[in-house]
Amino acid sequence: MDRVIRLGLLGCGTVGSGVVAILARESDDITERTGAKLEITRVAVRDLTRRRMLPLDDAVFTDDPAAVVEADDVDVVVEVMGGRDDAGRMIRRALQLGKPVVTANKELLAHEGPELYQAAGAAGVDLAYEAAVAGAIPIIKPMKESLAGDRVTRVVGILNGTTNYILTRMAEEGVDFRAVLSEAQALGFAESDPSADIGGHDAAAKTAILASLAFDTAVHADDVFTEGIEGVSLTDLRVADRLGYVVKLIGIASEVDDRVAVRVHPAFLAKTHPLASVRGSFNAIYVEADAAGELMFYGRGAGGEPTGSAVVGDIIDVSRNLLQTARGAVESQHRAKPIRPMEELATQYYVLLDVEDEPGVLAQVATTFGDHGVSIAQVWQEGSGGSAQLVLITHRAREADLRGTVTALGRIGSIRSVASVLRVEAEVFES
Amino acid sequence: MDRVIRLGLLGCGTVGSGVVAILARESDDITERTGAKLEITRVAVRDLTRRRMLPLDDAVFTDDPAAVVEADDVDVVVEVMGGRDDAGRMIRRALQLGKPVVTANKELLAHEGPELYQAAGAAGVDLAYEAAVAGAIPIIKPMKESLAGDRVTRVVGILNGTTNYILTRMAEEGVDFRAVLSEAQALGFAESDPSADIGGHDAAAKTAILASLAFDTAVHADDVFTEGIEGVSLTDLRVADRLGYVVKLIGIASEVDDRVAVRVHPAFLAKTHPLASVRGSFNAIYVEADAAGELMFYGRGAGGEPTGSAVVGDIIDVSRNLLQTARGAVESQHRAKPIRPMEELATQYYVLLDVEDEPGVLAQVATTFGDHGVSIAQVWQEGSGGSAQLVLITHRAREADLRGTVTALGRIGSIRSVASVLRVEAEVFES
Repeated sequence: MDRVIRLGLLGCGTVGSGVVAILARESDDITERTGAKLEITRVAVRDLTRRRMLPLDDAVFTDDPAAVVEADDVDVVVEVMGGRDDAGRMIRRALQLGKPVVTANKELLAHEGPELYQAAGAAGVDLAYEAAVAGAIPIIKPMKESLAGDRVTRVVGILNGTTNYILTRMAEEGVDFRAVLSEAQALGFAESDPSADIGGHDAAAKTAILASLAFDTAVHADDVFTEGIEGVSLTDLRVADRLGYVVKLIGIASEVDDRVAVRVHPAFLAKTHPLASVRGSFNAIYVEADAAGELMFYGRGAGGEPTGSAVVGDIIDVSRNLLQTARGAVESQHRAKPIRPMEELATQYYVLLDVEDEPGVLAQVATTFGDHGVSIAQVWQEGSGGSAQLVLITHRAREADLRGTVTALGRIGSIRSVASVLRVEAEVFES
Repeated sequence: MDRVIRLGLLGCGTVGSGVVAILARESDDITERTGAKLEITRVAVRDLTRRRMLPLDDAVFTDDPAAVVEADDVDVVVEVMGGRDDAGRMIRRALQLGKPVVTANKELLAHEGPELYQAAGAAGVDLAYEAAVAGAIPIIKPMKESLAGDRVTRVVGILNGTTNYILTRMAEEGVDFRAVLSEAQALGFAESDPSADIGGHDAAAKTAILASLAFDTAVHADDVFTEGIEGVSLTDLRVADRLGYVVKLIGIASEVDDRVAVRVHPAFLAKTHPLASVRGSFNAIYVEADAAGELMFYGRGAGGEPTGSAVVGDIIDVSRNLLQTARGAVESQHRAKPIRPMEELATQYYVLLDVEDEPGVLAQVATTFGDHGVSIAQVWQEGSGGSAQLVLITHRAREADLRGTVTALGRIGSIRSVASVLRVEAEVFES
């Protein structure tokens, strides 16, 4: 029981500090479970002069990540520095040296994940990345291990806490988007540059990682059709509520006829769907599999300690394997599956139109939908005069046809604007 | 890639058949992930004459479980026969022979789990049991591995699909308990003898397994305070709904001052709690941990394919380990932690009284609560004359005091009966 696994941390920000704190706090229990003491011997930081309130000796700090990776007294590399180029180089080098890697780097994996998994495979070394998607929520291991003998058919996630917090407050308190965002920024819940969150790009990166894993293929962040929540209005939320829906920013990945469909956008979700009850800054991932059926995983998607908890779980896994010269579960070999063009999506749509309150508008609108092969399920008018709005819910239609409809609607004089178009995800409803 | 892992199945009922079907269907992908072909070489069944529509050679079947365990051509034992004594003997023998075991046996583990984990530890052999709790839902691995470096403080589960189905239909359709139960039995959703389900004993067994794992101690099914849903009335559900609650049969385990509190009973849960949205026959487990915060795992708790999916995930895990002569994650060493007596619980209560509609009843009731140190948060009367009912919600009170109150209420002449007493789990609310 006197074996020691020596950890080298790349980065010591929010997540790194969480990892250090948890390892210190749970040291005895972890030793008991792994049969070895886990010791942090090296930590690479950007600014050596910054004081850190951590239970670590000053001598462990360096500002050279490469020195950590190369060090003889580092057995496992824990990459929590973020960013793409340097982090990717460090991870590749560590794998080459036969050192297992634990990473929380969603940006890197969303662009180079499948290549890195292959590099780990070639080196016969563990690369664990539970913390890269949805913080504390165990989702990578369940997909890679628990569902290893099953076939995942669809993944639907609420993967960004900031946008879910904003949408929840808008819906529950009637406060508009800008006001909630400013307040969230003031409280530190939202970044000062929130574009990656509210634009859906953060969720898209996580969706790419999940899609790659679920469908054994290489989905890159850029493959993900992405729309943010900037355009979601209080009217949209009110209409959704009245019809029995909530509005959520979701990432959806599915396999359809050997092609992968993958997209991130705000959508109407039925209130009875388990994802609809995910409020505030929580994340959740809903998984459909052939044998297991419907599964959902819920929890904190960010934060130093929640994300740190996932990193430490991975560290314990790879350490146990290292002690036994074994390797953990691996991804399936990748098949190159094409990405289905977004235009081929078929779903229901909600369309909100600002219109002149005059006779004949509805007829023109209905004709336009009909001309493009989009069938209307429900329609009603709200307000009158200068603030008249038409609300339409379509039957299932192709994205290409809906887009054609919207373009044509824009040309009708009595329509002042197409105020909103949101997808209605009836297809993921609980049966 | 031409290695073969030979599986011996004990039992071939619903779950066993699910395992056979999944292994046949996903054979190629599983071989790719494990680096070995998984082959079912022996299957012990009770009745050799029964025809089975399974892709297995007749020669694999035997009616002697011991022959499967002992067979030279069985590397991994998969116990899906159920029951306690025979199954326990077979598992112990397999571990002794150095053969990893996968089991779905909740009854056995709820009584002898910690002893069996120790036997596996002593033999240095894997004992995997994901399928023993909540079918397809990955909960054992996340608790044993993902949260290995974290500290679980509370587990709250909806662990029985039959009772959740009954409560959901009662609440949503206003059909009473007996009617829903009969219909569920006719449809095959409920057992012909449903007492283990509706009496809470099935949920108690699963809660015991989760509590043992979460708090590193030996909790037996008999340690779990258990109440079923037989007494839950439509009035209870209506009151709950009006106050913003749903009624669920929950298993709760927590660690309080080095003692384990563990109980199963129907309870009021806030509608905003993630567990409240778990409808129909679904299960879910809500976990609170120091670093990870709040987590929830949701899915199908029963059925051949869902449970089979979990069994196959375990088979792949132990096979990968076997090929590498490695061992998977283990439980922490057990500390003997006492069970906290139920009387010491402090929570809120809902009490429904059938009363005579006459002056002075409320005063008597209020005095009785006050005399026992139980403070009333809300009270109102429903109906009048022969069907008058008093509804009371208490502030947080001790179980012992509430029981004293109920006994005393029973002695008041103008109270015809104490119709319901249910716990209100405000303490597990989402903050």
